[in-house]
Amino acid sequence: MKILHTLPAQDGFCMPAEFSAHSGCILIWPHRRDSWQNGAYAARRAFAELIGIISESEKVTVCARFEDYDSARESLPENVRVVEMSSDDSWARDVAPTFVTDGRSVRGIDWGFNAWGGLYDGLYFPWDKDNKMARKLCDLNDTDCYDQRDFILEGGSIHTDGQGTLLTTEECLLGKGRNPGMTKAEIGQRLRDTLGVKKIIWLRRGIYNDETNGHIDNICAFVAPGEVVLAWTDDKNDPQYEISKECLDILESETDACGRKLKVHKLPLPSPVHITAEECSGLDNMDGEPTRTPGERLAASYVNFYIANGSVIVPQFNDKNDSLAVEILSSLFPGRKVTGLRGGRDILIGGGNIHCITQQIPQPDGTIGV
Amino acid sequence: MKILHTLPAQDGFCMPAEFSAHSGCILIWPHRRDSWQNGAYAARRAFAELIGIISESEKVTVCARFEDYDSARESLPENVRVVEMSSDDSWARDVAPTFVTDGRSVRGIDWGFNAWGGLYDGLYFPWDKDNKMARKLCDLNDTDCYDQRDFILEGGSIHTDGQGTLLTTEECLLGKGRNPGMTKAEIGQRLRDTLGVKKIIWLRRGIYNDETNGHIDNICAFVAPGEVVLAWTDDKNDPQYEISKECLDILESETDACGRKLKVHKLPLPSPVHITAEECSGLDNMDGEPTRTPGERLAASYVNFYIANGSVIVPQFNDKNDSLAVEILSSLFPGRKVTGLRGGRDILIGGGNIHCITQQIPQPDGTIGV
Repeated sequence: MKILHTLPAQDGFCMPAEFSAHSGCILIWPHRRDSWQNGAYAARRAFAELIGIISESEKVTVCARFEDYDSARESLPENVRVVEMSSDDSWARDVAPTFVTDGRSVRGIDWGFNAWGGLYDGLYFPWDKDNKMARKLCDLNDTDCYDQRDFILEGGSIHTDGQGTLLTTEECLLGKGRNPGMTKAEIGQRLRDTLGVKKIIWLRRGIYNDETNGHIDNICAFVAPGEVVLAWTDDKNDPQYEISKECLDILESETDACGRKLKVHKLPLPSPVHITAEECSGLDNMDGEPTRTPGERLAASYVNFYIANGSVIVPQFNDKNDSLAVEILSSLFPGRKVTGLRGGRDILIGGGNIHCITQQIPQPDGTIGV
Repeated sequence: MKILHTLPAQDGFCMPAEFSAHSGCILIWPHRRDSWQNGAYAARRAFAELIGIISESEKVTVCARFEDYDSARESLPENVRVVEMSSDDSWARDVAPTFVTDGRSVRGIDWGFNAWGGLYDGLYFPWDKDNKMARKLCDLNDTDCYDQRDFILEGGSIHTDGQGTLLTTEECLLGKGRNPGMTKAEIGQRLRDTLGVKKIIWLRRGIYNDETNGHIDNICAFVAPGEVVLAWTDDKNDPQYEISKECLDILESETDACGRKLKVHKLPLPSPVHITAEECSGLDNMDGEPTRTPGERLAASYVNFYIANGSVIVPQFNDKNDSLAVEILSSLFPGRKVTGLRGGRDILIGGGNIHCITQQIPQPDGTIGV
């Protein structure tokens, strides 16, 4: 592995869209006792179900701590690779490298990671194991690695269309917990230099009460060049309405890097999901204050899906809109099988969902997947 | 990774000779404080020098504990892969898989490991991290893995010529610390079934005072089909003389699996090497008794070399025979560059040498290397 101190865009590398072909996918076996209730029992079941589906169409690597290796190995199909790697938690989207390609080879970007806000408003301390993972994953896969550790970024806060357009939120990228010394213009330039994009569409805020400071991947995602899905509610009394409406207005007034107007598909949200007292009681207190309080609203969204080579996997919340979300996504991804993951709530309790726990490795040729 | 419960020989797999072509080599970054003096400082320097040489002609993977990853990564060339993996110590020969091939693919064998004798006369406790490594290394490399955990064996206790002949010692394989419930015939059959060999040449004992219970790889090794090197001394007052003479008598009276008489090349030993009080003082006491006592004789031997695709690396002990060993091996490996490793003493203090800390992964086609 070479550590590169140049800029990907200058080297001719850019980040492909998630709907382009993948050579693999990375996840982390859950273990953190204040993120996952009851020793991560239900979360592991949900992760295993998800990994089983992804592994049907791409090579999956699962990172497990030393003490969790046997648990992961026994729970997962034999075509999944399990490797030992220490982690603080299990959000591969945010701690694994962001991969870029020049059409011939793939390289990783090692961003700085500070647990979604560091000592300002981060979600745990310490986060050193997580912060070491991107470089180690590049090493593991013999992938050269761009050193961008001086810039705090999580993979969940960016989406690209692979044609020069980036989606992100001001709430997250301009917050005080990431890069407070940088202006919006400087942050935008860094995204252009590293991800090879030409146009950045800045939404204002992410999903209501999303503890990642409004990651884009929970509220809006590209489903094709020029087309996005947006998490939506028609309930004007829900604080989410105003947020989604603001996103819609921006998206409808913007054009992408190719000058296209964006086609916005509304993806209905589930009814508000609140954590129960019983669920809270299954979360250990690791740092002096409980992670969650009974009745707290969780940032549930069907937008937090993962696009695999052969499938799209979308969380389910035992909600009336579950099947509607599957139906809408099925129409948007005609070449892929769209599957609802029953354990969506078990992942949501940890603070994110399917997209947050996966990170794709693109095929270098950038072909659009099946 | 598939876990296989069949027998390699029945599946058409056998262990190639070390002088056949390799696709890679595995080592473990040293860390154990009662094996390696002064925080493994000198050992790491020796390992790094060795890895630098091997990596010129094969892909090297180095396993490092979480806390040692940065040390390994900073010390090693960028074409070396460093992966996180927990270990109790650093003897890849004995804890990594033994690889077998059928000429098309490679599989690993996961032997039981009990630290060279378990609670009977093993060298440390616990050894659970070491014992998990073989399977994890197979998983890492997507190599199917034979489950032979019920049989205690270290890679350092076997040598093959790749043509059906196995060399080993009774002192090690028939000792009470490994498989006390098995007869010599049963152990021999297990070796035939797993390594695909037809003929086993049993030497009696290994190097004098070798704490591995006389591993073959410190006293005798194949250098070509039908040819071995034997660690030798002409000093009849040295307890090693009787041991080496006994080996010579057996080797000269035996034929290999192809019916050939063996050609035995004597490889002179260095003058006896004794650990100093200063060296002992650099070893931490981890389990209530010191690993070594000042003046203790160490099992130094030039036979403990590693045959890489493009080179042979042999330990040096600052001894008058150092250059003679390089010279003899150079004549026996005309296609490879034979290099003396200055840090041989630093590795020896840990209890073994170059062969003990390396494990080759064969090329599946079994071609003989350069």
